[in-house]
Amino acid sequence: MKGSAERPFPGFELKMLRDKREKRSGIVTLITDFGTETEYAGALKGSILSANPRCQVVDVSHQIPPQDIRRASFILMNSCRYFPEGTVHVVVVDPGVGTRRRAIILLKNRHFFVGPDNGIFTGVLSGPGKDLGYAIVREGFFRKPVSATFQGRDVFGPVAGHLSAGVPPRKFGPRVSEFTRAEEPLPERKGNRLTGRILWADPFGNLLTNIGRSEHGRFLIGQKWRISGKGWRIEKLSKTYSEGKAGQPLALFGSSDNLELALNQGRAADRLGLKPGDALVIRLAK
Amino acid sequence: MKGSAERPFPGFELKMLRDKREKRSGIVTLITDFGTETEYAGALKGSILSANPRCQVVDVSHQIPPQDIRRASFILMNSCRYFPEGTVHVVVVDPGVGTRRRAIILLKNRHFFVGPDNGIFTGVLSGPGKDLGYAIVREGFFRKPVSATFQGRDVFGPVAGHLSAGVPPRKFGPRVSEFTRAEEPLPERKGNRLTGRILWADPFGNLLTNIGRSEHGRFLIGQKWRISGKGWRIEKLSKTYSEGKAGQPLALFGSSDNLELALNQGRAADRLGLKPGDALVIRLAK
Amino acid sequence: MKGSAERPFPGFELKMLRDKREKRSGIVTLITDFGTETEYAGALKGSILSANPRCQVVDVSHQIPPQDIRRASFILMNSCRYFPEGTVHVVVVDPGVGTRRRAIILLKNRHFFVGPDNGIFTGVLSGPGKDLGYAIVREGFFRKPVSATFQGRDVFGPVAGHLSAGVPPRKFGPRVSEFTRAEEPLPERKGNRLTGRILWADPFGNLLTNIGRSEHGRFLIGQKWRISGKGWRIEKLSKTYSEGKAGQPLALFGSSDNLELALNQGRAADRLGLKPGDALVIRLAK
Repeated sequence: MKGSAERPFPGFELKMLRDKREKRSGIVTLITDFGTETEYAGALKGSILSANPRCQVVDVSHQIPPQDIRRASFILMNSCRYFPEGTVHVVVVDPGVGTRRRAIILLKNRHFFVGPDNGIFTGVLSGPGKDLGYAIVREGFFRKPVSATFQGRDVFGPVAGHLSAGVPPRKFGPRVSEFTRAEEPLPERKGNRLTGRILWADPFGNLLTNIGRSEHGRFLIGQKWRISGKGWRIEKLSKTYSEGKAGQPLALFGSSDNLELALNQGRAADRLGLKPGDALVIRLAK
Repeated sequence: MKGSAERPFPGFELKMLRDKREKRSGIVTLITDFGTETEYAGALKGSILSANPRCQVVDVSHQIPPQDIRRASFILMNSCRYFPEGTVHVVVVDPGVGTRRRAIILLKNRHFFVGPDNGIFTGVLSGPGKDLGYAIVREGFFRKPVSATFQGRDVFGPVAGHLSAGVPPRKFGPRVSEFTRAEEPLPERKGNRLTGRILWADPFGNLLTNIGRSEHGRFLIGQKWRISGKGWRIEKLSKTYSEGKAGQPLALFGSSDNLELALNQGRAADRLGLKPGDALVIRLAK
Repeated sequence: MKGSAERPFPGFELKMLRDKREKRSGIVTLITDFGTETEYAGALKGSILSANPRCQVVDVSHQIPPQDIRRASFILMNSCRYFPEGTVHVVVVDPGVGTRRRAIILLKNRHFFVGPDNGIFTGVLSGPGKDLGYAIVREGFFRKPVSATFQGRDVFGPVAGHLSAGVPPRKFGPRVSEFTRAEEPLPERKGNRLTGRILWADPFGNLLTNIGRSEHGRFLIGQKWRISGKGWRIEKLSKTYSEGKAGQPLALFGSSDNLELALNQGRAADRLGLKPGDALVIRLAK
């Protein structure tokens, strides 16, 4: 990897100017389940910066629950779009590390995604735009020897660094067109019941659900419905977490455009009797 | 926001050179109560970097206890001053998001502060120096559509990014001269008793108090006094955490210049019978 | 510190080009026991960036258990090597802050290390390569006044910033050639028993041991041996965390080249009846 930092491929910068689709922001974001108590996140950052000391490495989260592919997919989908075009997003939640699962680069909407093809890109793949995939196979870009247990450091990190420096995705391996998806069970409508699921609670105790605005908003906007539990009831959509009186339960489409349950000046997660994994039933007017 | 990254306002860099008070360090610091398990911090960073991909985003803390405005104010006051002049400090602890609370830019001692005007700037405002405030109202700088529940991402982030790139504060809205303050209850002196409060414990178990060196140091330096609890007593100020014997309780003005209670080679928080919120009584010699 | 950021020592950059051993990557990494709930990490970052606003500050970990010098040494050793040459690594785990313990710069394998000489560099010192040490004594580089309780902010931060900007290590103080080491108790071999120790569990529940591949691999590779506990037994080395059936206990040399105990699709820390500090006995074939 030595010497590659300054100018990975001579003359490449010129090409970059010509092909706007391949411009780079110089930013590499990280989503992992490494936590911050071990050396794993640091080693990953080092391997990225060894390939491109001039990129800026930005933590999105290292607190994905261990091996929770769906959560990584959600966090990626709801953070990547706010970064500038040309950003490289590295996602290492990799239960199958060292096995035959594929390593890929995904190019979509002028953002670059790097990680194992195990479903972590499901959310990104589900959005509008063309998906261009490349298998990561050219070992010349890897850190050697490649560990069987930490390919984040030895494969994804160096590849992300080189990508951020302007190396075209096709240099890392052949095109792929099929991707692994880890589908979240979708809300179901039966008669006048729409049944979703509580995904998790955020730091404010708001309960995120899998009920998305674009897919299910039409059932909830401009119609009568009811969500209820022991001693509480919600019958309308709110816009902010501060509506009504203190302690009033609220439902609103939050910043991720999924339905959330919240409590004005309180923690819905502590008071509504619902927890991650629980079903959430919305009774619609007939 | 497209295209604004490279050169937000042509010709502006020239003006920067002329007006030293408005120079920028290219650094944007973050203090939030978002935690690091959701996409919130990542989305905020993305929105800053979309407005200015060349700034360096630096985490101070995302672990402010949810909606704890006083804690945010303290952490900001005790970290911002160590950054270079021209740094933009973004603070998003925002219980009133989506309501009528004001969004502001504060310019003080050649540092820039961005966030809701809800008291998070109390500590900064209390220090010496002139306070220049601007309301954030020019929607042209915002990310669209502006979410009612996540203005960190849609308002404060983009504004901070543009500020760090050199846009003058006055471009974001009109001057404001009154600011919301969230006063910490001050220590009280009655007769020979000075009564303060335990604020919180740091990771080393040191107990921080609200007794500041400059306001109350004169009572404790060069005079006799005593702090005592069940089985322990402190009668003098220490300079380091290592004074005396192992297990000895200590009082010292720590790195924030507030009085701290500590234990040589131990955790005061676990041994002195005091916890955050408790009163701390110092008996002064008559 | 004013004005030092842009060009700490005029003409120095020229010398840098001449002396390749002293080149800088512009990257400063951080390992501390500060946690992320206080202002400590932010103040440290600010003090680095005030000395060199152009360096990139990279978090490795602020979650070292308070004052755990051995853990800091391990995390440093297993992360620093993946960063580019010319990187400055700041380690502030400093139980003796304010006492007579020495502050040093260590230069090794073209990496720079800054921190208290209390054993945190043990792992780095144990590796191959020449150790060049310098005491940090020139107060002109410090932030004033120097706090007796937070030298990370007032000494190590500014020194690291200036180092990253190209100031030669010898400018900070005289050469030192002896370093404090905090030796980890080594595994012991008696007869056909090799007895090591569980160091800690990683976020995946893998149990890291102090049994290193290069020192003890020869006992385990190409020979018969057995590790056993209540209801489980391991008799061979694995290469990945996914070998065998779900729930099968595994032993492998992981990414740090130390022996780890793991469980296919499970958490060894929760199932093998072993915890950090416990002895781990490997029975070797006679």
